[in-house]
Amino acid sequence: MSMLTSISGFPEWLPEDRLVEQAFVDLIRKKFELYGFAPIETRAIEPLPVILAKGETDHEIYVLRRLQASDEENGKVTGDQEVALHFDLTIPFARYVVENRGKLQFPFRRYQIQKAWRGERPGLGRYREFLQADFDIIGENRLSISNDVEVIQTINEIVAELPIPPVRIQLNNRKILEGFYRGMRIPEENIHAVLRSVDKLDKVGEEHTFQQLTGSLRILPETARKCIQLGQIKGQDSTRVINAVRSLEASHTLLEEGLEELSLVLDACRQQPGNSVVADLSIARGLDYYTGTVCEARFVQFPQYPSLLGGGRYDRLANTGSTQFPGVGLTIGITRILGLVLHEGLLRASRKTPTCVLIALVSEPLRSRSIEIARILRSREIPCELFPEAARYGKQIAYAEKKGIPYVWFPSESGENWGEVRDLRSRSQEPANPQEWTPPEEDRAVTVFRDEEASQSLVRKSEEPVSPTLRTKAG
Amino acid sequence: MSMLTSISGFPEWLPEDRLVEQAFVDLIRKKFELYGFAPIETRAIEPLPVILAKGETDHEIYVLRRLQASDEENGKVTGDQEVALHFDLTIPFARYVVENRGKLQFPFRRYQIQKAWRGERPGLGRYREFLQADFDIIGENRLSISNDVEVIQTINEIVAELPIPPVRIQLNNRKILEGFYRGMRIPEENIHAVLRSVDKLDKVGEEHTFQQLTGSLRILPETARKCIQLGQIKGQDSTRVINAVRSLEASHTLLEEGLEELSLVLDACRQQPGNSVVADLSIARGLDYYTGTVCEARFVQFPQYPSLLGGGRYDRLANTGSTQFPGVGLTIGITRILGLVLHEGLLRASRKTPTCVLIALVSEPLRSRSIEIARILRSREIPCELFPEAARYGKQIAYAEKKGIPYVWFPSESGENWGEVRDLRSRSQEPANPQEWTPPEEDRAVTVFRDEEASQSLVRKSEEPVSPTLRTKAG
Repeated sequence: MSMLTSISGFPEWLPEDRLVEQAFVDLIRKKFELYGFAPIETRAIEPLPVILAKGETDHEIYVLRRLQASDEENGKVTGDQEVALHFDLTIPFARYVVENRGKLQFPFRRYQIQKAWRGERPGLGRYREFLQADFDIIGENRLSISNDVEVIQTINEIVAELPIPPVRIQLNNRKILEGFYRGMRIPEENIHAVLRSVDKLDKVGEEHTFQQLTGSLRILPETARKCIQLGQIKGQDSTRVINAVRSLEASHTLLEEGLEELSLVLDACRQQPGNSVVADLSIARGLDYYTGTVCEARFVQFPQYPSLLGGGRYDRLANTGSTQFPGVGLTIGITRILGLVLHEGLLRASRKTPTCVLIALVSEPLRSRSIEIARILRSREIPCELFPEAARYGKQIAYAEKKGIPYVWFPSESGENWGEVRDLRSRSQEPANPQEWTPPEEDRAVTVFRDEEASQSLVRKSEEPVSPTLRTKAG
Repeated sequence: MSMLTSISGFPEWLPEDRLVEQAFVDLIRKKFELYGFAPIETRAIEPLPVILAKGETDHEIYVLRRLQASDEENGKVTGDQEVALHFDLTIPFARYVVENRGKLQFPFRRYQIQKAWRGERPGLGRYREFLQADFDIIGENRLSISNDVEVIQTINEIVAELPIPPVRIQLNNRKILEGFYRGMRIPEENIHAVLRSVDKLDKVGEEHTFQQLTGSLRILPETARKCIQLGQIKGQDSTRVINAVRSLEASHTLLEEGLEELSLVLDACRQQPGNSVVADLSIARGLDYYTGTVCEARFVQFPQYPSLLGGGRYDRLANTGSTQFPGVGLTIGITRILGLVLHEGLLRASRKTPTCVLIALVSEPLRSRSIEIARILRSREIPCELFPEAARYGKQIAYAEKKGIPYVWFPSESGENWGEVRDLRSRSQEPANPQEWTPPEEDRAVTVFRDEEASQSLVRKSEEPVSPTLRTKAG
C-alpha cells in the first residue's frame, strides 16, 4: 500500500482532532438526550426513487453498484431498484417513520448523528462526506406550532452552550414567502423558482436577484422590487417585522398564517437567555419539502461561511396515503462547524491519546509487573498503556511526551514496592501504589478546551476589511 | 413518501434497540480508551485499486458513481479513479497510517468504530451494512510479538466484561500453517488455497476438505490427512498443542517460529482471570494480508453462528517502499453480536427514550410554567420533555407509559408551588420543586440490563439436539 490517495472533500482528522470531534459530538448527544430525543440510525443507502421523489436537484447523488454483479443484474444492489447514499438524514428519517409507524409513539422525538454524502464541488466549509446531527419531532396527522417553538428554542439553548464562536440563528416561515408571492399574483408554477432566487439574495446581491426575477421569471419590475424588499426584512422584534411586511401591501391568508407562526416562535425565543434568533425573511432553504418554519444559522463574525445548521417544518414529507406525518426539525453540520473550529485551532484536546499513564518497561523479566500495574489501574478506570519494549528510559519518556501523556510509571520488582510515578510536566517523581494512586480529575480523561489566543486571533481576522481566506483543513 | 422499502441486509433498529447498541458501543469505546487506544475515523470510500490490491475476492464491493456526472467523466467520483465503500476498517487504517506517517507517533495505537459494507448474500448474522469496532497497534519498521500478546490479552479482558453470552476466542498463527505446508512440500502457489480450504474445515467437515485438497489442489492423500489433522488440534495447554503438531512430523523454520509465537500468546492469556482463549489450528482467516497471529471468536453455545470478532498480525499491509508498518489488531463485529443479542432479547433498555420526566401541559396559559420547569430540570442534567398540547391527563400519562418514562410532572400555576411529580410505577404523587427534586440515580439515564429469562431460554435452546434457527431481527 504505497499509494497516497487523499480524496478532495472527504476529510479525515488526526487523533488529536478526532478527540475534539468526539467530545463535540458527545456534548451534542448529551443535549439531545436532555431534551428527550431518542437515538436512531438509518442505513446509509436509500432507493433512488425515494431520494429523487423530493424534487431534489441541487445535491449530487452517489449511486451504488455491485462490482461483481452479473450483466443481467446490471450492477444493482437489490433486485429491481437502484440505491444511492443518502444526502441528508431527514428523508431517511421520514421513510423510517412510515416503515415503523406501528411501533413508534407519536409525537416521536428522535436524534440521529450520522455521515451523509453529496457529490458537490468541495469548497469553503463544503464537503462531500460530512457528519450531521439531526433532531426532529414528528406527529401522526397533526403537529401543533408549539413543536416549532420547542425545536427553535432547543437549538437556541444548545448553540448558546456549544464552545464555538457567536452564532446568529436566522428564522423565517415559508408561508410568509409563498403567501406574499401569491398575494403578488406570481403564477403558482413560478413560486418555488422565486423562493430559490430570493434565498440567494444575500449571496448574489440585490441587482443580480432583480435581473433574475424580471428576466427568466418574467416578474413585473415593481413586484420584483417588493419581493426583494421582503427578503431584506430582518429583526428580533416581531411587531416591527410584521409592520415592515404589511407596508409592502400584499394580502393572502397564507401570509397571515406565516406571520402569526413566525412571531410566536420569535417571541418565545426572546424570553430565552443568550437569545440569538433573528427573523430574516430572505431565508427560504433550498430543499423543496419545507412548508412552514425554516431556519439557518451562521457565525456572526463570518457571514460568508456557509450555514452551520438548518431545517424547519415539513408537513408533507412522510405519508402513507391515509396518514400524514408532519414533522419539524433541524440539522447541525458537525463537519462544517469543526472545519472552521479545527482549522483555526479554536478547540484543542489536552493530549493526543486517552492514555493517562505510560507504564514503562524496565526489563523483559519485569514485563509481568508492568502488565499487573496496568491491570490494576484500568480496573480503577485510569487509562494506561504499556511501552512495548525495554528501551532506555529517555526513549520511553520521549514517546509519552510526544503524545502528551502526563504520567510515566517506572515499575519496581519487589512485592510491596510498585515503583515510582513521574509527572512529565513538573518532573517530580514519587513512589506510588497502583491500588491507591489517583491522577487529578482533569488528567484522567482527555479534556477539550478553548484556545483563547486562537479565538482572539480569529476576532482580529474578522475585523480586517478584507474577508479572511478560510480554507478547510482537509478540503 | 408512501414507498416501504426495507432492504435486505441493511438492518435498522427501533429506538429501544438503538439505545442498547449505543450503550454497547459506549462500553467498548470506554474499554479501548482505558487501554490507551486513540480514536480515528476514515472516510467511507477508498480508491478501488487500494481495496483490490490485497487480493480480496470473497467480499463483494460497492462501487460509487455520480448520478449527474457527464459522459466524459464516466460517473467517476474523482478525476481518474473509481472509488468504493470500504469493506473493512483495516485497509483504510493502513492507508491512513501511510498518509499521515509524519504526524503520528509509533507504535501508534488506534481504535475506530464505523460502518462497513459488503455486497454479500444476507444470512444468519451476515449483513451488507454493519458496525465494526477495531483496535490496532502499528509500528514503524518493527513491532515485537509482545504487541500480539497485548492485543489478544486486551480482547480476552474486554470479552469477559461484555454483557453477552460466553465466548470462545480461537487462536492460531499463520506461520504454523504456512510452515507446516512448506514442510510438507506443498508447492508455494497452492499454500493460500490450502489455507482457505482448511479454514472451512469446521464448517464443511473432514470429508469435504479431504476431497478438495486431494482433488483440485492435487495433494497426496497422506499429506492431506496430515493437513486436516493439524487443523483439528485444539487446546489451552501450549505444550500439548506443540507436541500434537510435532507428532505430525513436519519440519520448517517458519513452523517453529509460529509455534513459539502461539505459545507465548497462549501462555500469557492463561494467566488472565476469565480466560477464554483456546488454540485452534483450523483458524486461518479469509483475508490474505495476515502474516502471523490470527484469531476469531464464537459464542460457546452457538458455534454455528459466524465469528463475532477476528483479526491478527499483518506485517506487509502498509508500506511506503522504504518503510514497513507492521500491525496487529482485531475487529469486533458489533452488528453481528447485537444481531443475536437483540433478536433473543438478551439485553434490554430500561425505557424507549432518554426522557426521565414528562412535563405535562395543564393548560395553554400554563405552557410557560412547563417550559420553565423543563429548563430548570435540564440545567440539573435531568432529561425531560414537554407534552405538546393540553390534552386530558389520561392521554398524557398513557404517552409516558408507552415510552417507559418513569415520571410525570403536573405543573401548578402559583409562584412557589411548582406542582406535583407522579411516579408511574408506584403511582405515588408528591409536591416537588424543580430546583431540588432529584430522581434515583438508576432512573436519571436509560440503563441497559440483561434479561435473565431470555438468557435462560437461550441456554435451553442451545441444549436442544437440533440447532436453533436463529434469524436476524432485521435480516
